[in-house]
Amino acid sequence: MSGDWLEDVCWDGNGLVTAVAQEVGSGQILMVAWMNREALSLTVAEGYAVYWSRSRQRLWRKGEESGHRQKVHDIRLDCDGDVILLLVEQAGGIACHTGRHHCFYRSFKEGRWATVEPVLKDPKAIYQ
Amino acid sequence: MSGDWLEDVCWDGNGLVTAVAQEVGSGQILMVAWMNREALSLTVAEGYAVYWSRSRQRLWRKGEESGHRQKVHDIRLDCDGDVILLLVEQAGGIACHTGRHHCFYRSFKEGRWATVEPVLKDPKAIYQ
Repeated sequence: MSGDWLEDVCWDGNGLVTAVAQEVGSGQILMVAWMNREALSLTVAEGYAVYWSRSRQRLWRKGEESGHRQKVHDIRLDCDGDVILLLVEQAGGIACHTGRHHCFYRSFKEGRWATVEPVLKDPKAIYQ
Repeated sequence: MSGDWLEDVCWDGNGLVTAVAQEVGSGQILMVAWMNREALSLTVAEGYAVYWSRSRQRLWRKGEESGHRQKVHDIRLDCDGDVILLLVEQAGGIACHTGRHHCFYRSFKEGRWATVEPVLKDPKAIYQ
């Protein structure tokens, strides 16, 4: 496998690309994170989502603490080459660190962000 | 309506936030773009997606040239407050400037990005 496919990605000034994780089956958007070249290469090699954590400045194997790994079914690249879409199977049914199914649990209603999705598991029980 | 909801969004150093557009019904991810405060405010006020074009450095009412507007059904904010998710109805069934239904038409297969979605309309006929 040549490394050229990595060069088809338009990495930003920090060497990162936006990565969207969508759940196979439900089609729900689980989360949006970032990848660098190594994270994308490892995602391909391991078959599970690996991101680059900007806050921790290190590789982040999704689910490394929580067990909520994301098995990758398909990897897509957008027309501009600056966004990756992962189609994933979400272990445990929880993608968000708040213990919710996905991260987009706030909906704009009458001028404010209303929480519209339940916590499925207490984060204290997820991250011990 | 107070302006506080705009401050709940974590705008980046350029005053932007990532915006994902997902199609109501199909659940398909149509595109990923950017918004600034004005774009998000206008999206709420007009009920159609308005983005900030980084390449053109101006507001971009999606579909202003092509007619492929996006009627907004729901606006979501993620846990970190740095990604907006729009649930939209896609006019014309075409979100991508290449004339495809959505922008994620390249799939990673055997070490390369394979185009796996058809062009529905010639871009020359879209942008005249």
